[in-house]
Amino acid sequence: MSTAVTTPSADPGFVEDDLGAALLSAFEGSHHKRRAAGRAAFPSEGMLRDPALGLDDARAWTLERLHVLVEAGFGQAIVGVDRATTDSQIQSLIDFETISYGDLSVAIKSGVQHGLFGGAIAGLGTPEHHARFLSDALTLRALGCFAMTERGHGSDVASLETTISYDPQAGGFVVHSPHDSSAKTYIGNAAAHGHLAAVFGQLIVDGVARGVHCILVPLRDADGTVLPGVRIGDNGHKGGLLGVDNGTIAFDHVRVPRDMLLDRFGAVDAEGRYVSSIENPNRRFFTMLGALVRGRICIGGGAAIAARRALSIATRYAERRTQFRRPDSDAESPLLDYLSHQRKLLPAIARAYALGFAQNDLIDAYGTVSSDSRHDPRAQRALETQAAGLKVLNTDFANAAIQTCREACGGAGYMSENQLTQLRADTDVFATFEGDNTVLLQLVAKGVLTDYRDVWGGLGRLGLVQASARLVGSAVIERTGAGLLAERLSTTARRKGDAGALSDRGWHVWMFEERERHSVDSLARRMRAADSDSFDQVNAMQDHVLFVARAHMERVVLDSFIAAIEACPDGAARQTLEELCTLFVLTSLESDAGWFLAHNRMSDARAKALRPRINQLCADLRPRATALVDGFGVPAEWLGSAMLAG
Amino acid sequence: MSTAVTTPSADPGFVEDDLGAALLSAFEGSHHKRRAAGRAAFPSEGMLRDPALGLDDARAWTLERLHVLVEAGFGQAIVGVDRATTDSQIQSLIDFETISYGDLSVAIKSGVQHGLFGGAIAGLGTPEHHARFLSDALTLRALGCFAMTERGHGSDVASLETTISYDPQAGGFVVHSPHDSSAKTYIGNAAAHGHLAAVFGQLIVDGVARGVHCILVPLRDADGTVLPGVRIGDNGHKGGLLGVDNGTIAFDHVRVPRDMLLDRFGAVDAEGRYVSSIENPNRRFFTMLGALVRGRICIGGGAAIAARRALSIATRYAERRTQFRRPDSDAESPLLDYLSHQRKLLPAIARAYALGFAQNDLIDAYGTVSSDSRHDPRAQRALETQAAGLKVLNTDFANAAIQTCREACGGAGYMSENQLTQLRADTDVFATFEGDNTVLLQLVAKGVLTDYRDVWGGLGRLGLVQASARLVGSAVIERTGAGLLAERLSTTARRKGDAGALSDRGWHVWMFEERERHSVDSLARRMRAADSDSFDQVNAMQDHVLFVARAHMERVVLDSFIAAIEACPDGAARQTLEELCTLFVLTSLESDAGWFLAHNRMSDARAKALRPRINQLCADLRPRATALVDGFGVPAEWLGSAMLAG
Repeated sequence: MSTAVTTPSADPGFVEDDLGAALLSAFEGSHHKRRAAGRAAFPSEGMLRDPALGLDDARAWTLERLHVLVEAGFGQAIVGVDRATTDSQIQSLIDFETISYGDLSVAIKSGVQHGLFGGAIAGLGTPEHHARFLSDALTLRALGCFAMTERGHGSDVASLETTISYDPQAGGFVVHSPHDSSAKTYIGNAAAHGHLAAVFGQLIVDGVARGVHCILVPLRDADGTVLPGVRIGDNGHKGGLLGVDNGTIAFDHVRVPRDMLLDRFGAVDAEGRYVSSIENPNRRFFTMLGALVRGRICIGGGAAIAARRALSIATRYAERRTQFRRPDSDAESPLLDYLSHQRKLLPAIARAYALGFAQNDLIDAYGTVSSDSRHDPRAQRALETQAAGLKVLNTDFANAAIQTCREACGGAGYMSENQLTQLRADTDVFATFEGDNTVLLQLVAKGVLTDYRDVWGGLGRLGLVQASARLVGSAVIERTGAGLLAERLSTTARRKGDAGALSDRGWHVWMFEERERHSVDSLARRMRAADSDSFDQVNAMQDHVLFVARAHMERVVLDSFIAAIEACPDGAARQTLEELCTLFVLTSLESDAGWFLAHNRMSDARAKALRPRINQLCADLRPRATALVDGFGVPAEWLGSAMLAG
Repeated sequence: MSTAVTTPSADPGFVEDDLGAALLSAFEGSHHKRRAAGRAAFPSEGMLRDPALGLDDARAWTLERLHVLVEAGFGQAIVGVDRATTDSQIQSLIDFETISYGDLSVAIKSGVQHGLFGGAIAGLGTPEHHARFLSDALTLRALGCFAMTERGHGSDVASLETTISYDPQAGGFVVHSPHDSSAKTYIGNAAAHGHLAAVFGQLIVDGVARGVHCILVPLRDADGTVLPGVRIGDNGHKGGLLGVDNGTIAFDHVRVPRDMLLDRFGAVDAEGRYVSSIENPNRRFFTMLGALVRGRICIGGGAAIAARRALSIATRYAERRTQFRRPDSDAESPLLDYLSHQRKLLPAIARAYALGFAQNDLIDAYGTVSSDSRHDPRAQRALETQAAGLKVLNTDFANAAIQTCREACGGAGYMSENQLTQLRADTDVFATFEGDNTVLLQLVAKGVLTDYRDVWGGLGRLGLVQASARLVGSAVIERTGAGLLAERLSTTARRKGDAGALSDRGWHVWMFEERERHSVDSLARRMRAADSDSFDQVNAMQDHVLFVARAHMERVVLDSFIAAIEACPDGAARQTLEELCTLFVLTSLESDAGWFLAHNRMSDARAKALRPRINQLCADLRPRATALVDGFGVPAEWLGSAMLAG
């Protein structure tokens, strides 16, 4: 899609029901029109891959489909960082969401080509690089790789072994893979199609290592012949995403001209000296990686779409599939009438809504921060924390929810023609690429603790008292935008104490805040007491760190949900969202009930009341199930599920 | 494998470490020699499928491999029920376990051919059927189907629509699919290879429906041409198990001679009258299904092997794969040094041990019950309950554990050459076939409640008082064999109260008993109060029913673990098993901590102590991780995982 939203129309009338339409409008929020335009432009015919295609055919089909998408305007919103607007940045994210309605190999291939390869040029390159390379990248004249991960180092990017050495005699660079473990691996577009690669490696200038930088290296000539010094391998068959040609790349002293270094943050000048606008090498490293935050947001968004597709399939099937005669009639019951089935699907639907609202806010934040020429480091860090955290929540949820949907459809769910196993296999690796989820959660916790230190650090005795007083309010949890309403609700609930109803939103926020606040506080205390140079002492806190990250993200998601309900103008949709929000909250509380009880945040009676209340919410929402998945915005005819035909 | 255990040798020396060897011996318990003989006979070369094979090639490869297995003696232990011995029955289960070391399509194809098709002949047929059909079935001269599931009815077998109508004029049967929904579907061996099918349908004699029976129907002639009146469809591509040719079968008034009815439990005599040794049609139905219990035990056992293969791969990888430099040295840490990684793998290893011990006891029970000519209905029901429950626990666990292993291996885990995604895809449907897991758990709960009623039902006032007194002891939970030691430990712990250590085994049993006892008791009370003819009232208890089933099975598993430790002669292995058992228990308690706290079974302090204690156990066990997976008995060279080579 081009940046401008040219189609002002609402969705093509695929939602029959008023409630479904109102939910969709609320669910997509401020991005509804843009998403509707995306759907209108999406070449939906033939976008689901025949699962029987072998590796070569799948790759060829995927590339061909990518061309179709580009012709329809997708992937064209990536622009050089100096020309980026809120609109263009948001559009690039919505593009990826929209193409995730089709085969996920195509989406990931676009992600590699436009988001990562194009994004590296746009985010790490200078205006000269943008002018020279970006258009070819976006229109597929130059197919490209994002060559970061190495055999020896994936999550630990700082330890990459590939060298980018400046040769002052030649005035250019030598790219080299010193060891077997230095070979780039799992690189999309490497095995078959890539002409050019954005290669990450250690920049060495005049014998001094300057940390990880990125350089463009030609891989193949126009005929597809691999260039001298480049060694390509094929990762072969994978657990999914068969249409993406992942491969390995090793370099044997490959010479590259100086102007191929994407040197926005670190360059070698005409005199052969290293220059950078960022003094601190550590900050430079994280600034460069931060420029790539879009990938994480896209992966989270794509996983969310995959989960919605699966939930749409399973819910529609559970409405029509009957099994076992009712004791009180001759009719068989639809699967969705069974409590056990409702408990599989409805809490997942509620969580999909919750994550969707949080993703909307993340998209807004990305649009603002990434197009802001002032580059506020605090805003950038907050964005990166939320992007990492939502990537984890979305991808973990997608894998679990799609699996639940597969099982909820029984044997039919296992047949490829019904799409669920394909979605599951393709989404699986979303938990790994663009940052391993366990590693990302540690990043989130680090962000949370940094905020914590900003509030608490360097306080004298007096300051500590003041801060303690603020802590009773909400000192640690700083909120802007979406969170303000939630904060107000929680303050009211605290005043009332535990007497409020189980459905009291203020109590919900309070509980989510307590989970976050207490775990952050106790972790900070443990960290102060620990020797940060002791592997064992730091390691012993790792599960606590992961708990903090999840507690923080759950609260952020709830904040977004509450703000979205407030923004919903339709009475019936709003009421439904209230119920979904309560269901989301209570299932989150139920899964951590042990924590709330052991930490005296919840009474026994209240904990026992969770289960019947969740059951009741499921029963209440069950008649609206179809409208709920209509609200996800996946046209039924795009689901491509044979068991729903006819 | 033939019935006799001809190889008395220990395992081929694939376990280098003393502890590993001792663990293996303990883990395989009384079946160790038989399993070792199975491994010695297993044609391990070339038993992992090339994931790139298309559907047709995968099917052909699988059939060819099945022939290799049969030549090696596998699948030959299925015998007619009148000739069954404890030995033969156990051997049939171990055979399936052993072939699960290789490609799971081959295992499932053997399961269809030997276990289900052969098993239907052996279990539902008369000695005449055994003599006439069994040998051809076992040696693959007649490839067969087990045609139970229909498009319209899977879990609800009693409502199958296929008719088997007796025609007194012709003196034979007419097999017919009256509706589209009556077509058999997901039937292994149907799409390509099957000659004969064991077809389940409603037997109709003289206009009277006699309930579900099973008849052999020829599908294809010797050339493979489909016979008149039979319509075959192909289920095509699936989420896994590509080597199994699942298809649909519909019948258009197909005539079958009278002696093809597998009429051990219900027959049509020469005068055209229906005769059965079982008066009650409901009991007859469940007796016939009960004869098929072997399939569920096999599926649970196969899933367990798949989980062990995945855990072996992920643990060995986590020992060699390093990432991130330690703060206190220049070396990078192996993944398994990280607490977060330990918490992914070690509790799963502990649970794999726990389920393995319970499976051993189940195998013993099957050997005894299924070869006992007295056919004790109570023993049969107990066996079916345990088989259903362990099938659920094993398959749910396998899917979760393999997924955890995939993610724990990062990008490498997603490459087919490392086997994890293949295992995951193939095992997925284990949660569905041979009984949907949610439906099976309801069966388990029904079995538990029937025992409960047997104890409580029909008690007068005096009896109730006596029973209440017994309840304080252990009235509801009746134990034999493996459970006796656990019962004794729990009685001692109850006397001491909550003062015992977190690692006190008696306290563990007590807690598991309390979870079961309280939930059964409260469910029974709710059921007595409910109108059993009201769908809504029965439905509202479904989640409670599932909780009861899981609580019961967790306790059964713990009983087995405790008995296995007691039987372990090796001191070091025994100590390790004690730690694994504690880890299994504490993670089970942790996941239900909310329940234990809300029901006042555990103090806040104790609940809070769970997490650090689990972490400590992980750290303690970590240096023995390789020995732990050696104890699973999967030879490293059979793992076929490229990342472990060299």
